[in-house]
Amino acid sequence: MLEPVGSLLWRSLRVYQVYGANTDVGKTVFTTILCKAANRIWRHGETSFLKPISTGPQDEADDRHIQTFAPGVNHETLVQYELAASPHIAALRSNKPIPSDETLLAKIHRAASHRAARGPGWLFVETAGGVHSPGPSGTTQADLYMPLRLPVVLIGDAKLGGISQTISAFESLKIRGYDVEAVLLFRDQLYKNHLYLADYFRGQHNIPVRSMSEPPKRDENPRTDQESMSQYYDATSRDNTASEILERLDRRHHERIARLESMSREAVNKIWYPFTQQKHLSPDRITVIDSARGDHFQTLAPPPPPPPRQASSPQHPPLLQPSFDGSASWWTQGLGHGNPSLALAAAYAAGRYGHVMFAEAVHEPALALAEALLRGARSGRLARAFFSDNGSTGAEVALKMGLRAARVRYGWAAGERIGVLGLRGGYHGDTIGAMDCAEPGTFNEKVEWYEGKGFWFDYPTVRCAGGRWAVCVPDELKGQLGDGRDHASLSDVFDVEGRERRGEGTEYERYIVNRLERLQAEGQKFGSLIVEPVVLGAGGMVLVDPLFQRTLVNVVRRSPHLFGSTVANEPVHESDWTGLPIIFDEVFTGIFRLGRFTASSFLGVDPDISVHAKLLTGGLVPLCATLASESIFRAFESDDKSDALLHGHSYTAHAVGCQVALQSLREMKRMDEGGDWGWAKRGWQGASSSGQRRDEMKSVVCSDGIADEASLVWSVWSPEFVEWISRQTALVDGVWALGSVLAIEMKSPDGGGYKSNAARDLQAALLRGDGTESSRRWNVHSRVLGNVLYTMASQKTTEDGVKRIEGLLKKAFAESAHVV
Amino acid sequence: MLEPVGSLLWRSLRVYQVYGANTDVGKTVFTTILCKAANRIWRHGETSFLKPISTGPQDEADDRHIQTFAPGVNHETLVQYELAASPHIAALRSNKPIPSDETLLAKIHRAASHRAARGPGWLFVETAGGVHSPGPSGTTQADLYMPLRLPVVLIGDAKLGGISQTISAFESLKIRGYDVEAVLLFRDQLYKNHLYLADYFRGQHNIPVRSMSEPPKRDENPRTDQESMSQYYDATSRDNTASEILERLDRRHHERIARLESMSREAVNKIWYPFTQQKHLSPDRITVIDSARGDHFQTLAPPPPPPPRQASSPQHPPLLQPSFDGSASWWTQGLGHGNPSLALAAAYAAGRYGHVMFAEAVHEPALALAEALLRGARSGRLARAFFSDNGSTGAEVALKMGLRAARVRYGWAAGERIGVLGLRGGYHGDTIGAMDCAEPGTFNEKVEWYEGKGFWFDYPTVRCAGGRWAVCVPDELKGQLGDGRDHASLSDVFDVEGRERRGEGTEYERYIVNRLERLQAEGQKFGSLIVEPVVLGAGGMVLVDPLFQRTLVNVVRRSPHLFGSTVANEPVHESDWTGLPIIFDEVFTGIFRLGRFTASSFLGVDPDISVHAKLLTGGLVPLCATLASESIFRAFESDDKSDALLHGHSYTAHAVGCQVALQSLREMKRMDEGGDWGWAKRGWQGASSSGQRRDEMKSVVCSDGIADEASLVWSVWSPEFVEWISRQTALVDGVWALGSVLAIEMKSPDGGGYKSNAARDLQAALLRGDGTESSRRWNVHSRVLGNVLYTMASQKTTEDGVKRIEGLLKKAFAESAHVV
Repeated sequence: MLEPVGSLLWRSLRVYQVYGANTDVGKTVFTTILCKAANRIWRHGETSFLKPISTGPQDEADDRHIQTFAPGVNHETLVQYELAASPHIAALRSNKPIPSDETLLAKIHRAASHRAARGPGWLFVETAGGVHSPGPSGTTQADLYMPLRLPVVLIGDAKLGGISQTISAFESLKIRGYDVEAVLLFRDQLYKNHLYLADYFRGQHNIPVRSMSEPPKRDENPRTDQESMSQYYDATSRDNTASEILERLDRRHHERIARLESMSREAVNKIWYPFTQQKHLSPDRITVIDSARGDHFQTLAPPPPPPPRQASSPQHPPLLQPSFDGSASWWTQGLGHGNPSLALAAAYAAGRYGHVMFAEAVHEPALALAEALLRGARSGRLARAFFSDNGSTGAEVALKMGLRAARVRYGWAAGERIGVLGLRGGYHGDTIGAMDCAEPGTFNEKVEWYEGKGFWFDYPTVRCAGGRWAVCVPDELKGQLGDGRDHASLSDVFDVEGRERRGEGTEYERYIVNRLERLQAEGQKFGSLIVEPVVLGAGGMVLVDPLFQRTLVNVVRRSPHLFGSTVANEPVHESDWTGLPIIFDEVFTGIFRLGRFTASSFLGVDPDISVHAKLLTGGLVPLCATLASESIFRAFESDDKSDALLHGHSYTAHAVGCQVALQSLREMKRMDEGGDWGWAKRGWQGASSSGQRRDEMKSVVCSDGIADEASLVWSVWSPEFVEWISRQTALVDGVWALGSVLAIEMKSPDGGGYKSNAARDLQAALLRGDGTESSRRWNVHSRVLGNVLYTMASQKTTEDGVKRIEGLLKKAFAESAHVV
Repeated sequence: MLEPVGSLLWRSLRVYQVYGANTDVGKTVFTTILCKAANRIWRHGETSFLKPISTGPQDEADDRHIQTFAPGVNHETLVQYELAASPHIAALRSNKPIPSDETLLAKIHRAASHRAARGPGWLFVETAGGVHSPGPSGTTQADLYMPLRLPVVLIGDAKLGGISQTISAFESLKIRGYDVEAVLLFRDQLYKNHLYLADYFRGQHNIPVRSMSEPPKRDENPRTDQESMSQYYDATSRDNTASEILERLDRRHHERIARLESMSREAVNKIWYPFTQQKHLSPDRITVIDSARGDHFQTLAPPPPPPPRQASSPQHPPLLQPSFDGSASWWTQGLGHGNPSLALAAAYAAGRYGHVMFAEAVHEPALALAEALLRGARSGRLARAFFSDNGSTGAEVALKMGLRAARVRYGWAAGERIGVLGLRGGYHGDTIGAMDCAEPGTFNEKVEWYEGKGFWFDYPTVRCAGGRWAVCVPDELKGQLGDGRDHASLSDVFDVEGRERRGEGTEYERYIVNRLERLQAEGQKFGSLIVEPVVLGAGGMVLVDPLFQRTLVNVVRRSPHLFGSTVANEPVHESDWTGLPIIFDEVFTGIFRLGRFTASSFLGVDPDISVHAKLLTGGLVPLCATLASESIFRAFESDDKSDALLHGHSYTAHAVGCQVALQSLREMKRMDEGGDWGWAKRGWQGASSSGQRRDEMKSVVCSDGIADEASLVWSVWSPEFVEWISRQTALVDGVWALGSVLAIEMKSPDGGGYKSNAARDLQAALLRGDGTESSRRWNVHSRVLGNVLYTMASQKTTEDGVKRIEGLLKKAFAESAHVV
C-alpha cells in the first residue's frame, strides 16, 4: 500500500520541471544550460538533474549529456528503457514490470527527498517528449505528474507550426493547474516564433519568453562535435539570459514559499469564515491548501518539532504534505480534486457559452442535465427541473413549490400561517426560508429573523454498537414505539418492505397518525413534509430508521383529511400529490453519496419534489436542481403572470455548472454500472447475512459478480472495520457507514450536540497523521459535528485509500484510549 | 460598421472545419480524400472546399491540389499571400491591408452563404498550420474562428511526439467550445500513434479516431508523382474508412439540427422556468441558444416567412443568427461570452484544486480575491470578505451581520422584532430572508412565507425627459420635498457634494428625520439600512437621486438616538458603524456596471457592509462576496461558538469562482486604467456642460485625454441618443443611461409596474431585428420590467456595437410610433 506523495517543495531547494512543447525542441539543451548556469552562479549549493524516465540506448541518454557538458551537476535517471520510443511502448517491450503511476511518483518523491536532504541548490526534473507524451503506464505525463505540482519551465517550439504547439502545450498544462514560470525557445530567424510568443505570453499570461541561439549543427567527427557543443554551452550558460531566467526562478520559488507561509495570517485578518467562531482562531489552526488532487489536499506542513537527540530526521523537511480530504470538502467531493475531465467540461461550457440567459431560453447542457436527472431519479412522479445555485436556495424553491401547491389545493388564503412537517434535527440550508423549515436549535436560535414554522417529529435511529446493528428508540418515544430492536445486518434494517410486511411499521403509523390528529385539533396548518431521506447531515449525521421515514410519507399521503379543510380537487393521476407535497432534500444524501443515485430509493417511495446539489457537479462548482412533479407544477399555472414561481437567480442553469454536472453524472453512472465499487460491495454482501426474505428480493448477478446488487446496502468502509469501531465502547456510543460516509458518535461527557468537544481528540489525532519519516508524512483533514466525527470518501477513493484511513483511525483510537 | 456574423449552419449543407494538430500532418491530403469521397457518394449535391487563408506561391496552393486530385469539387481561396510563412508574417509583408478578424469572418460567412444558396452538399473549410497558428491579424485561428462554431475534423499527428500534439490541440479546441467530431491521422507503423489515440479519445471523449495509410513518397518526376498521388486518392477515397467518416459527419450534422429544433419543445415540457408564467409559454417563445461569443448569442432562427412573389431570398436560409444579449444575461455579463481567458482561469482552478474546503482553511484564489475586492472598494470601512454563492444569499449574509451588530450594540433580546430600513421598490434576492427586506409587491406578495420586515422610504428619482435631466419628486412627497428640479446634465445631478453645499439636501434631511422620529414613536425597531446604491434594478430600473441616498445614510449614521434604546458602546474608531449598520447591495450596480468599481463612490459614502455578485465573475459562474467592517465583525466574537456567523454554503469560496473573479477584476481594472472606455467617456464629458464648481473638483487629465475622469458620470449609450429617446414623448415617460445600462420608461396605459405590457412592442421590434437579407439577419434579445425596457452592454461592447443597437432602437421606435 503506497502512501500518497506530497508535492515537491523545500525551502532551500528550487525544484523545476522542464516540459517541452513538442519532442525535439531542445529540452535537454536548455536544461543543460540551466544546470550549468545554476552550478556556476549558486556555488554554495548543489545543482541536480533528474530524469524520471529515459528511453533509448543509455549512451545517448540525457543523463550522459549532462554529465559530459555540465560536469559537477549531480544527475540521476530513475527508469531507463533501451528502446528509443515513447515510454508507454518502450515499457511494454522491456520485459520489465511496468511501474504504476503511484510507484513512479513515489520513486520521484524519494529521489527528490534524498536530494533535498543534501542541502540547498537546484533540481531540474526533465520530462520526456511533449506534455502529453504517455508515461510507462500510458497516462500522459501532464496528468501523471500533477500531484507533484512542480512549477514549469516550458521549452517552446521554434519550428514552423511551433507557435501553435507552444500555446497548446501551455494550455494543456494550465488546465491541470500547472504554473508555467518561463518559456524558453531557440531563436529561429526564419519563423521568428520567439517574437510572436513573447508578445502573446506577456499580454495574455504575464509570463516571460526568452530565446537563445540554436546549438551548432551536429558534426560527424565526435571530438569536434563535442568541442563545438562545449563552446556553445560555455557561451549560453554565461549569457545574461540564462542568469536572468535563473534569477526569476529563484525569486518565484521564494515568493511562493513566502506567500504560503503568510496566507494563514492574512486569512485570519481578511476573511470572515463560515460557521466559525473567529475569536480564538489563530493562524496555526488555518489549513493552507496549495493544491489538491484526487482525495488529497496538499497542505502547508506545520513546522517540525525540534528533532530528538541523535535523530536522523532531515535538516530540510518538506513544506507540503498530502492531507486526505476527510470531509469531502463539506460533502461535495465526488470525482476527485483536480479532475482533468471536469476541468475540461467546465472550460468547454465556458468557451461555448459563458453564462447565457435561461429565463424563456434553453441551451444544451441545461436541457441535457434536466433529462439526465429525471431519467436517473427513475421516479413515477418527478417530471420537471428548476435550477438554482445551491442546496439552500434549492430548498427554498422546493418550499415555495410545496406550500403553494397545498394552499391552492386546500383553498387557504394568501396570508394564512402555514408550516411544514419535518424531523427533529433536520437541516435544509442557511438562508432564512430554509432555516425556518428546521426546528429551533444551535444553528438558528440566535439568528435574528429565524422563526421555525412547523412541527418536527422525533424518530428512531439506526447504529452499530457493541457489534450489533440496532434500531434505537429515543427515551421519549419508548412508551409508544417500544424499545427498538437489533437486526442481523444493515441490509436487514433497510429491507423496509419486508419489515413492513412483518408489521414493524404498525407502531410508527399509530404514533404518526396520533400526532397529526393532535396537531389538526390544535388548528395547525401544514403545507409540505420536508425531510432529508435516510441521513440527517448537518443535524449530526443521524441515520434515521428508513422504515419510519417510509411510514411517515405513506401516512401523510393517505391522510388528506388531516391537512385540507376541504378536498376541493381530488387527484386524478397516480403521480398527483395527495395529503401534502412530499419534499425530499437529497442535497447531501443523493447522487451516490449513500451508494445510490437517489436516497429515496432506500425508502421505496418517490417524493413530489426533490432537491439535488453538492455531489451534483462531482464536487467542482455550485449548482442545484429542484425536481418536481407535474401535479406540483400545475399549481402555478394561471393567466396572471404573478402567479408564476417568482424565483430565479441570475446564474440559473449556468452552462459551466450544467456541463460539469452532466459529465459527473455520466462518469458516476459509468462507475456504478461498470462495477467500480465491487470491491466494497462484496464485503457488505457477506455481511448481509440474514437471508430472510432473500427469495422475494430481486435477484440479479451483476458484471462484478454481486448478487442482489439493486437491493444491496453497502459502504466503502468495511463491515469489519465498522464493527471494530462499534466495540470501542469506552469511547464510542455508536457508528454507522453507508455509501461513502462513516459517522462515529463519541461518548460525550458534555452532553453532545453541536457545541460538544467530544470528537476533537480523535480529529486531532487524524490531523497529526501518519508517517514516521517527516519526508513521508500524511494526515487526514476532518470535520466534527459536536460529538460526531465523520469521514467521507469520494466516489473515486480506492480500496487502498480507505484501508489507509481505517488504519489511521484505529491508531487514533488507540491514542485516544490512552487519553481517556 | 460590420454586422455580427451568424454561426454557419444550414439544413442541407454539411459544413466542417478541418484543423491540424500540427503543421505538415496531412490536413490537405485528408481534406482531399473527404472531398473526393463526398463528391463520389453524394452525387445529388455539390462538394465544396474553402480555404480562408492560404500562404505560399499560388501554384502550390491547397486549392490547386484539390482542383488536380478532386476534380468536380468546387474550390475557393479567400485570402492568398505569396510568402510561404505563417499568415501573420505573410500578411505583414504583403503590402496589402491586413484584414481584421471581423472582415475575415464576414468574408467566410459570405462565401459559405453563397455556397449554401446553391443547394445541398458538403463544405470543408481548411485552416492553416496548427490550431493556434496565427491568422493575418495575429489572433490565433482557434480564437478567430470561434463565432462560426463549425464542427471539427481534427487531423492528428502520426509522427514522434504526435500523441502529445494531438491531445493538446484537441484541448485547445475543446476549451473554446469546439465540438471535434472525428480525429483522422496517418498510420505510422513505427510510432503507432493511431492505436494510442484511438483508445484515448474513445475512453475520454467518445470521439472516433480513424487512420489511413500515408501518401506515396514525393517523386521527382512531376508526371509520375501526380499519377501515384492520383492512385493514392482513388484508393483512399473509396476506402470504407472515408465513407464511414462521412456517414458519421452526415449523421452528426442532422442530429445537431434535429436536437436544436426539438429543444424548445423539450424545454417546455421538462424545464420549470424562473420568473415565468408557463401557462402560455409555447415553444416558439423559447430562445434556443446554440452558443455565445462576445456580446452575441447564436440562436435558432425562426422559420422564415413565405417569400414574396419573385423574391430573391435564398431557398436555404441559415438556421442560426446572432442575437445581441441585451439583458447581459440577467445583468451578469461583463467580459463577453465564450471568453477564452475566463475559460482558462476556470479550468486552471479546477485542475489545481477542484473545490476545496474553506472553513478554517485558505487557498490562493480566495485570499487573492478578498484582497482585490477590499483594495478595489477603496473604503475606509470594509475590511473582511465572506463568500457565498449568489446575490440573494450574500444579501442574507449581510442581513445576519447587520442585525446582529445592531442587536448586540443596543442590547435587544434575541427574540425581539427588528426590521430594516430600505427604499420602496428595493429588491435583494429571491430567498425568503432577502425578500423580507423588501416591501410587499408583485415579486413577493403571493409567496407563502414572505413577510416584509421594515420600513421603506419613498424618494425622488432621476431621468431625462423631453431633452432635460430632472430630479422628479413623487406626488406624495411634493408637499415635503417640493417639485424637483431640472439639471444641466447627469454629471450635475451626481455632483452630490456640490448640491449638498448648495443646500439641496436640507429638505431631504428634514423629511428623513421626521419619518424616523415618527417610526421611533410608534415603537418600531430597526437593525440595518439596506439599499441598492444609485439604481434599483429588479424594482424597475429606477435611478434614485443620489443626493437622497447620501442624505439618508448620513442621517442614519448620526442618529443613534433614533434607533438604540441606550447607546451602550460608543464607537471609538472612525470606521465603526454608528446609528445603524449601512448595507449596500451592489450586486447589480457594482463592479463597473455603472462605470465604476463601486456604486457607493457615486454617493461619496462608504457602507459598513456591501454585497457583490453578478459581474464579479465577469459573467461566468455564480459567486458572491459580502464585505464588512471590523466593527461589524467584532459583534460576532465571543467565547461561545454558537455566537459565530452561522452561515456557510458547501461551495463557499469555490476555487473556480474565485479564480475567474480574480481574472475578471484584473481585466476590468486594466480596461479602466488603460482608457478602454475613453470613446464613451469623451461623449459624456462634452455633455457635462454646467461647469459649476468645476474648479473645486479633482481635475486630472488621463491617458485617454479625459479631464475630471474620477468624477465623470458617463455611459456607453451616447448622450445624443439618450436625449433623442427622451424626446419621443408620445411613447416615453423618461430615460436614463449610466455605465452600460440604458433604461427606457414607456408610457403605460395600464399603469406600469411588473405586470404592465407597455414595453412589449419595443421588445418585439428588437427581437425581429435587422438585416434585410435573411442570410445576414441579427436581432436583440432583451428583457422588460413591466413598462421599462432596458438594454445593457457588456464591459467589452465596442462603440460600433453600441451604435448598431442605438440604430435598431431608433428604428424600433419608428415602428412603434406607427403602432401607436
